[in-house]
Amino acid sequence: MKIKASICQLKVSKDKDFNLDNAAKMIKKASENGSDLIILPEMFNCPYENDYFVSLAETYPGKTTSMLSDIAKKLGVYVVGGSIPEKDGEKIYNTSYTFDRKGNLITKYRKTHLFYIKMENGMVFKENNTISAGNSISVFETEFCKIGIVICYDLRFPELMRKIALEGAKIIIAPAAFNMITGPAHWHTLIRARAIDNQVYFLAASPAKNLKVKYVAYGHSMIVDPWGDILTEASEGEEIISANLDLEKLEKIRKEFPLLLRRRDDLY
Amino acid sequence: MKIKASICQLKVSKDKDFNLDNAAKMIKKASENGSDLIILPEMFNCPYENDYFVSLAETYPGKTTSMLSDIAKKLGVYVVGGSIPEKDGEKIYNTSYTFDRKGNLITKYRKTHLFYIKMENGMVFKENNTISAGNSISVFETEFCKIGIVICYDLRFPELMRKIALEGAKIIIAPAAFNMITGPAHWHTLIRARAIDNQVYFLAASPAKNLKVKYVAYGHSMIVDPWGDILTEASEGEEIISANLDLEKLEKIRKEFPLLLRRRDDLY
Repeated sequence: MKIKASICQLKVSKDKDFNLDNAAKMIKKASENGSDLIILPEMFNCPYENDYFVSLAETYPGKTTSMLSDIAKKLGVYVVGGSIPEKDGEKIYNTSYTFDRKGNLITKYRKTHLFYIKMENGMVFKENNTISAGNSISVFETEFCKIGIVICYDLRFPELMRKIALEGAKIIIAPAAFNMITGPAHWHTLIRARAIDNQVYFLAASPAKNLKVKYVAYGHSMIVDPWGDILTEASEGEEIISANLDLEKLEKIRKEFPLLLRRRDDLY
Repeated sequence: MKIKASICQLKVSKDKDFNLDNAAKMIKKASENGSDLIILPEMFNCPYENDYFVSLAETYPGKTTSMLSDIAKKLGVYVVGGSIPEKDGEKIYNTSYTFDRKGNLITKYRKTHLFYIKMENGMVFKENNTISAGNSISVFETEFCKIGIVICYDLRFPELMRKIALEGAKIIIAPAAFNMITGPAHWHTLIRARAIDNQVYFLAASPAKNLKVKYVAYGHSMIVDPWGDILTEASEGEEIISANLDLEKLEKIRKEFPLLLRRRDDLY
């Protein structure tokens, strides 16, 4: 069974309405190749800056989630809505909403690991200045297989991906925005390692590089197979990338090289 | 504080005495640059084949471990003796013995995850046909820092490296023998990911490629820093590689980007 998946590597501007229109256009375009699953990047409606997380946050249901639901229903595709700043009472979360082919919300994931970096002579970012962390993992069912969601910095914690794989996910999706320091240093290695370790398809969706915002995303969205091979990879600009995810190939790899069965739960 | 570490990527033949002489010569040569820590590959005294694991296994203390202890004492260096087939009663283990500068055995680690692969049209290897698995992890103290040991296929289980890092190891050493299928596919990615995730120096020691034995090792021994950069990497032949492991650099990375402190133990 094959799943056609596409990632929309869109450029995020400071204008939320522009971002929503742009996302809708790219999702529509991605659907034209018969995609079953269309994925947006982290904070696709909002620059990755604490001030914007506050000023552009919305409650559910809101303008952004309604657009996502409507377009999923209209096109009959699964839409993983990257992530957006979600307002819930006094708190703001970095939240990913996923809608099924009928436009129903089938999972909502709040980023559980908040980005923190404080380099002596460079980047400083403390996501927890404005964002609260979620407290649960997210795995949802489709007619193909189970799919798990993580967001960006979550990627750095192999425990989370392992837990999702052990819950049965065969695809893990990561809306993410690595930057021009962490991207070149770690992006390919971490994404490929998570796919190899857990023998899953791993789909990482980044915003396009945009020099007009403070936090510049690395781009290089990619789809990696369960052997760790990169099936397709974007460059740094706006781009749609697509690949067929072949679950028979995944089962063959898991049968020939059964990593998940050879864990030593008694040791760790 | 800097630790000078060397890996002896030696060619393993079917002649055990030759292998021991060769290892002793390479350790001696490696010590000439002032190495504190000298590392041999997995099954450095024995071809990586189940039949040889049985015929060349030795009990402790034995010919191999005496050579390692003697040379560690003579040269005043730490010697991580890759691994060898260890006979203990009816059982055989894939065991790594480490000797301190005085020639004392300071840790013994029995591989806990046994290699299993059964490819339809290719490699078949079932290490558990002859080898029994160890049941504990290994972290030892030095005047520099704590150091952990894993062996080859163990590398595929991030849980083990995480446990070692959480026990305080700042260096993880992996005698390993990836092959000509798994090596090109996974070697660099997994080693670099373990270093990045755990913010440790990661030293992976492979045998040299030898087309005269059945199981052909990939070579490419490497030393990776806590940011995931490869400090030095061997090619496929016999070679000694060396690097300085700078613990101040490690502490700076851990302070600026404190991954180990941002785990969500409540979630997994």
